[in-house]
Amino acid sequence: MGFAFTNLLELEDLARAKVPRPSFDYIAGGAEDEVSLRRNREAFTKWALRPRVLVDVSRRDTSTSVLGQRVSMPILVAPTAFHGLVHPEGEVATARGAAAAGTVMVVSAIATKAVAGPRWFQLYVWRDREVTAQLVKRAARAGYGAICLTVDTPLLGRREKDERNAFTLPPGLSIANVRPAGLDGVPASERGSAFAKYVAELLDPAVTWKDIAWLRSLTSLPIVLKGIMTAEDATLAVEHDVDGIIVSNHGGRQLDSTVGTLDALPDIVAAVQGRVEVFMDGGVRRGTDVLKALALGAKAVLIGRSALWGLALGGADGVRRVLEHLRGELELAMALTGRAALAQVDRSLVQRV
Amino acid sequence: MGFAFTNLLELEDLARAKVPRPSFDYIAGGAEDEVSLRRNREAFTKWALRPRVLVDVSRRDTSTSVLGQRVSMPILVAPTAFHGLVHPEGEVATARGAAAAGTVMVVSAIATKAVAGPRWFQLYVWRDREVTAQLVKRAARAGYGAICLTVDTPLLGRREKDERNAFTLPPGLSIANVRPAGLDGVPASERGSAFAKYVAELLDPAVTWKDIAWLRSLTSLPIVLKGIMTAEDATLAVEHDVDGIIVSNHGGRQLDSTVGTLDALPDIVAAVQGRVEVFMDGGVRRGTDVLKALALGAKAVLIGRSALWGLALGGADGVRRVLEHLRGELELAMALTGRAALAQVDRSLVQRV
Amino acid sequence: MGFAFTNLLELEDLARAKVPRPSFDYIAGGAEDEVSLRRNREAFTKWALRPRVLVDVSRRDTSTSVLGQRVSMPILVAPTAFHGLVHPEGEVATARGAAAAGTVMVVSAIATKAVAGPRWFQLYVWRDREVTAQLVKRAARAGYGAICLTVDTPLLGRREKDERNAFTLPPGLSIANVRPAGLDGVPASERGSAFAKYVAELLDPAVTWKDIAWLRSLTSLPIVLKGIMTAEDATLAVEHDVDGIIVSNHGGRQLDSTVGTLDALPDIVAAVQGRVEVFMDGGVRRGTDVLKALALGAKAVLIGRSALWGLALGGADGVRRVLEHLRGELELAMALTGRAALAQVDRSLVQRV
Amino acid sequence: MGFAFTNLLELEDLARAKVPRPSFDYIAGGAEDEVSLRRNREAFTKWALRPRVLVDVSRRDTSTSVLGQRVSMPILVAPTAFHGLVHPEGEVATARGAAAAGTVMVVSAIATKAVAGPRWFQLYVWRDREVTAQLVKRAARAGYGAICLTVDTPLLGRREKDERNAFTLPPGLSIANVRPAGLDGVPASERGSAFAKYVAELLDPAVTWKDIAWLRSLTSLPIVLKGIMTAEDATLAVEHDVDGIIVSNHGGRQLDSTVGTLDALPDIVAAVQGRVEVFMDGGVRRGTDVLKALALGAKAVLIGRSALWGLALGGADGVRRVLEHLRGELELAMALTGRAALAQVDRSLVQRV
Repeated sequence: MGFAFTNLLELEDLARAKVPRPSFDYIAGGAEDEVSLRRNREAFTKWALRPRVLVDVSRRDTSTSVLGQRVSMPILVAPTAFHGLVHPEGEVATARGAAAAGTVMVVSAIATKAVAGPRWFQLYVWRDREVTAQLVKRAARAGYGAICLTVDTPLLGRREKDERNAFTLPPGLSIANVRPAGLDGVPASERGSAFAKYVAELLDPAVTWKDIAWLRSLTSLPIVLKGIMTAEDATLAVEHDVDGIIVSNHGGRQLDSTVGTLDALPDIVAAVQGRVEVFMDGGVRRGTDVLKALALGAKAVLIGRSALWGLALGGADGVRRVLEHLRGELELAMALTGRAALAQVDRSLVQRV
Repeated sequence: MGFAFTNLLELEDLARAKVPRPSFDYIAGGAEDEVSLRRNREAFTKWALRPRVLVDVSRRDTSTSVLGQRVSMPILVAPTAFHGLVHPEGEVATARGAAAAGTVMVVSAIATKAVAGPRWFQLYVWRDREVTAQLVKRAARAGYGAICLTVDTPLLGRREKDERNAFTLPPGLSIANVRPAGLDGVPASERGSAFAKYVAELLDPAVTWKDIAWLRSLTSLPIVLKGIMTAEDATLAVEHDVDGIIVSNHGGRQLDSTVGTLDALPDIVAAVQGRVEVFMDGGVRRGTDVLKALALGAKAVLIGRSALWGLALGGADGVRRVLEHLRGELELAMALTGRAALAQVDRSLVQRV
Repeated sequence: MGFAFTNLLELEDLARAKVPRPSFDYIAGGAEDEVSLRRNREAFTKWALRPRVLVDVSRRDTSTSVLGQRVSMPILVAPTAFHGLVHPEGEVATARGAAAAGTVMVVSAIATKAVAGPRWFQLYVWRDREVTAQLVKRAARAGYGAICLTVDTPLLGRREKDERNAFTLPPGLSIANVRPAGLDGVPASERGSAFAKYVAELLDPAVTWKDIAWLRSLTSLPIVLKGIMTAEDATLAVEHDVDGIIVSNHGGRQLDSTVGTLDALPDIVAAVQGRVEVFMDGGVRRGTDVLKALALGAKAVLIGRSALWGLALGGADGVRRVLEHLRGELELAMALTGRAALAQVDRSLVQRV
Repeated sequence: MGFAFTNLLELEDLARAKVPRPSFDYIAGGAEDEVSLRRNREAFTKWALRPRVLVDVSRRDTSTSVLGQRVSMPILVAPTAFHGLVHPEGEVATARGAAAAGTVMVVSAIATKAVAGPRWFQLYVWRDREVTAQLVKRAARAGYGAICLTVDTPLLGRREKDERNAFTLPPGLSIANVRPAGLDGVPASERGSAFAKYVAELLDPAVTWKDIAWLRSLTSLPIVLKGIMTAEDATLAVEHDVDGIIVSNHGGRQLDSTVGTLDALPDIVAAVQGRVEVFMDGGVRRGTDVLKALALGAKAVLIGRSALWGLALGGADGVRRVLEHLRGELELAMALTGRAALAQVDRSLVQRV
């Protein structure tokens, strides 16, 4: 069975004991004072569930579809960098765990391994646009189900633990996707985060709405924008014909002092008016968290750190167990709120406290 | 005199020293992060009392009636399972204590002993409906004053301490009421709560509003629904001709992340418009708590854990002392707010803070 | 100089080291969970000061009048019982300190000593109304400036520390005012507060608004009601022709779970519409506290525990120093908010935070 | 490189280890309960940033102008007294650091040294108006860019640590600007703050709006009022033809219990309607803080304690590094909110939380 856990909140402490400190800090940490990071969790405490009773919940169905793809639960694996930091099999194992749980993994552009399975491709835009275009085209050929463009990272947020650790990739790890272009190495740093320097030097801080058309010209895959936090940008996204939006503050790792993502969700859902699918990530640890996000209009949520802790603690099976545990909590929360299927989850399920 | 206490809040610590840890955890714990559990207490801090002065309070009367039955105080004993966990006489002693204090005990369907005295019968619905029907009929024959159907437990909430303790009934204890049907045993569990498995396997997760008519066909006793948390369900309850409602989140043991029950009460009282009696439980520890619930429209409150701690610490007399202490605090709070009788308690007595 | 202190908040700790524990507990403690006690302090943190600048504050005048009597500051000494608990000279020293500071002491009916100086007489109503009437008449003859009837104590609040300490008066102390009637002794208690029993047995829980006329028939002194917490009772007070109101929750010692007195003040001031003088006590420790109360409509405030700590630490001079320190803080706060005189203090000086 | 730091919040602890305690306390402390001091920081947590995405932020410009003067960043050095307390070069080093960072230092009237560089002159009004007039005229001759009159200090706030420390200037330090008038010494105190006595005796508590005309008659330099906390006074300031306002509560060192300055800013900006430049200080520690103040209408912010800690830890270069670090954080925050230039910063960038 491997590691024992009762809920996802316990995983961080379990992982801390196993993962080398700089890698743990890189994954667990947030930007600056970690206000955005904490608010992601706190936002869930500001919405209470309104349980309905005397509903037949003898059969409970957590399955749904995301961008037309059937999944066993409204929970995807969020794109996170460098899975090789916590497990030798890296992203390969994560993908296997997600597939075993019947859901989609969003694979980071800066993964340490190439992977198979049901998956979307997260995209950063390198200053070298040709390299970027090749990534998109290769993803389509490799069977990825969507391109998920991260829009909140023109520069890397100041993650102060990484600054102090002079965080870089350990020997043997590199960014597999851009190896052909020779951009896969993250050179060590004497002072400050080496990865922050990589981003500042090689990624493009001048990506704008015009580039959505460019991206569209490269692929017929659905395009999802990750990192939208305002109704204004959600409206622009719809106008630029994207297929989905992920409400996200990058796990509290980019701009500090935003609201929690759950608190950003309702305005965005209202602005989008159902024209594209809206997802969210940030602080999801409980089945009741998932239910709240769905009640406020999310089609599904994504989990980042929890999946990584599962990977660190148990490889592919650890990832699967984390996902299935969360699915189980969601199923129980559905039963206890009188919802047998996700279609019955609506705004009346939550109230502000 | 037995154990010494100054208020009911002290009882939990006193009991912790006496009750075996798995039993203590089972009683004291709540579901998941225990948010609902904490909010039950916190809700009382969000309402302040507005004392009136220069009223003759030389005589103070805490008596009232519940479903037509006269009681010495607007405080009943809530249905809780397995009193045998804390005292060898189990529910028999609790019932004797409640009777001595002049009030009603609601006896759990999953009691460890059969009891006498002024009492209501709490009902779970077994998948075996015939077993369930027999329970109801037997309760009527045995002189119970009401059937109190718990509606918030299609599955058992995840009480994580019980999961870790692999909680089950100790040797010698079983569910007396369903012994004739051979359903009284809770088999031990290798991993996880044995009781959660019992509920999942043997209780019926498909009970719906239609079953209220079925229940009505079995008995002429008043029917009370326990576990209503929304105005919508309160309205449905009235429409289905029940006689009472208990606003309850099962002591924070079922769905986590609800509001505190006192905060759910006003909307429900408004929806019910006096057509049925409304009760509440959850976090009541002080006479001022009782007064606040009454001011917000409750006919009476129920106490669960406090009664069990009284039982653990002093048997029947412990239960009586706990109830009488709380009645005394209520009487003092009435005097200090200028209310000589419960009929003078109204909404003007409280304000939101 | 005696004891050193920088502000009144330090006094409680200084006094704790000097006063016997049961006496300290009696003075410092509040009822039940001490929610009312804490809220008195917290209420001050919910109002912020709005400083005005470029006003000539080279001369600052803190003097005012209360019920027609000139005082050096809008700060009186609140009636508190049993000053003999903390200093052998008891109320005599307190009165001397208040006089030296140029302000009024409200002397408790249950003082341990008879006193001189500018003072009002706080009245409890004994069941023996003749004893009570004599107290009132004697006060008038002795030159007291007002009768201050406490209306929030039909029974004594449960002060749990006193319950545990079985609090009673130490040998040699008694209630001087009712010695002629033989009611001055507080018999020791085996269990619970002896003083609470004294109140329950000898004071009258049936005092009503009708008794204001009775009290008026006994004396031509101004009558002040102490313990009003609602606009409704303030209106009744005006209608019953009293001369003043003290907004008070008895220092958090009677009903627990009221709002803080500063939060009760605005509604009462609005109801009274200037027809009688409104005072307040509860939690005043800072010059800025005094200023806030005045901005919200109080004519003056009263301090209780702080004066007792001054008495405990330095006798009459300790009381004087406490009062003068607080007056100094008030004067500085006036300067820093651009108010040279109390007449310039109005509602625009505060804002809710 | 000298001292290492990751953010400005770390500086206080670093400085505490280096600066003599009475000097550290004088700088770090606030008035009375330090409520105003804490609220300055807390106010920033009550506003969240609303990041916009897909904006070209490849070039980011933090430069702006203040009173017509070009600066590299919207961050000035606030006037603070006695830099000689933490570094032998005192204000001379601070000015050099500010100049190296490309911004303005506001030099205190009670500086310990005369300085050069881009700077404004902070003015207190001595009772000896001739001395004061000479200060103003000398500032104009010496090339100061503005006169910044502090209006919140008719008396010194009670900084209780200074009271306990009997704070005074150490041997060798004095108030350079008033040496010609023989007012430069701060005599030691037996009890209480010597500096508070200096202010009470020598500074003028009777400065009023009429004196603005007097000040205008002395100089053609722009006049800025520092210490405005209300819309009423901001309106008066505009009517008295000043050129700028600094929203400030004197770093929480004067009146305790005001709101945080960021919370006072919006009303003042609304009242001023762009007629004069509005600045703010108080609790600025992060680039995101600066951005919030600008979004709410400030033209620039000022930092006080952080600059002093930089001076204490690294002299002129320490001051420069502190300023440049904060400018860097601001630049990153601009990038992550989709603002390439300060002109794009507006009210839509923030929301209340």
